[in-house]
Amino acid sequence: MTNPTDLIDRYIAMWNETDGERRRALIAGVWTERARYIDPLMTGEGPAGIDAMVAGVQARFPGHRFRRTTPVDAHNDRVRFGWHLVPEGGPALAAGIDFGVIAGDGRLESMTGFLDHRPG
Amino acid sequence: MTNPTDLIDRYIAMWNETDGERRRALIAGVWTERARYIDPLMTGEGPAGIDAMVAGVQARFPGHRFRRTTPVDAHNDRVRFGWHLVPEGGPALAAGIDFGVIAGDGRLESMTGFLDHRPG
Repeated sequence: MTNPTDLIDRYIAMWNETDGERRRALIAGVWTERARYIDPLMTGEGPAGIDAMVAGVQARFPGHRFRRTTPVDAHNDRVRFGWHLVPEGGPALAAGIDFGVIAGDGRLESMTGFLDHRPG
Repeated sequence: MTNPTDLIDRYIAMWNETDGERRRALIAGVWTERARYIDPLMTGEGPAGIDAMVAGVQARFPGHRFRRTTPVDAHNDRVRFGWHLVPEGGPALAAGIDFGVIAGDGRLESMTGFLDHRPG
């Protein structure tokens, strides 16, 4: 099985990759075809839906980056970790926890986000 | 849809119900037939598997009770909350976060536990 920390670090890199071609290559490595992301503010279904969702967040919050803020806690086919969305040199704009399910091939099948601090 | 806080409080009551008949009645109200629980220490599949798992935890930690320690945070068909496992009058023996998926009929379809503090 893929190392969960490596998988999640590539997932975070996907959120931060603004070059469309490189982002879609990251998505292909990180997500299965059944990819599903859901949080209180948005959803994305399938690799193309994930790509559009991430591009939308980047357009809404230009210059911001996602950072992992906790170790990756994994057991069985499950994973959780904390993250912040931070502007260049500023305090976190949003913070939350993501819970994921890993498919048999080591890629993400689903991810659910919960927000502890919402973008204003 | 069921009120998520009410659903989770009945889920916690299930963990604490030591009368088998009453526990199975709680399970029927809280879980679908596809019920699946998984955490780093145990799993339970289907209502009978959940019942056996809970009875096993009660036998392993007699006199202990589960308590919800956070508000129930819900969005879409997802839910999360924190809990402690506490002995009568003592400090928490274990602590964690449960993350669940709610089925269309308002009952739990799956629950994943993560441990922040493990039983010694």
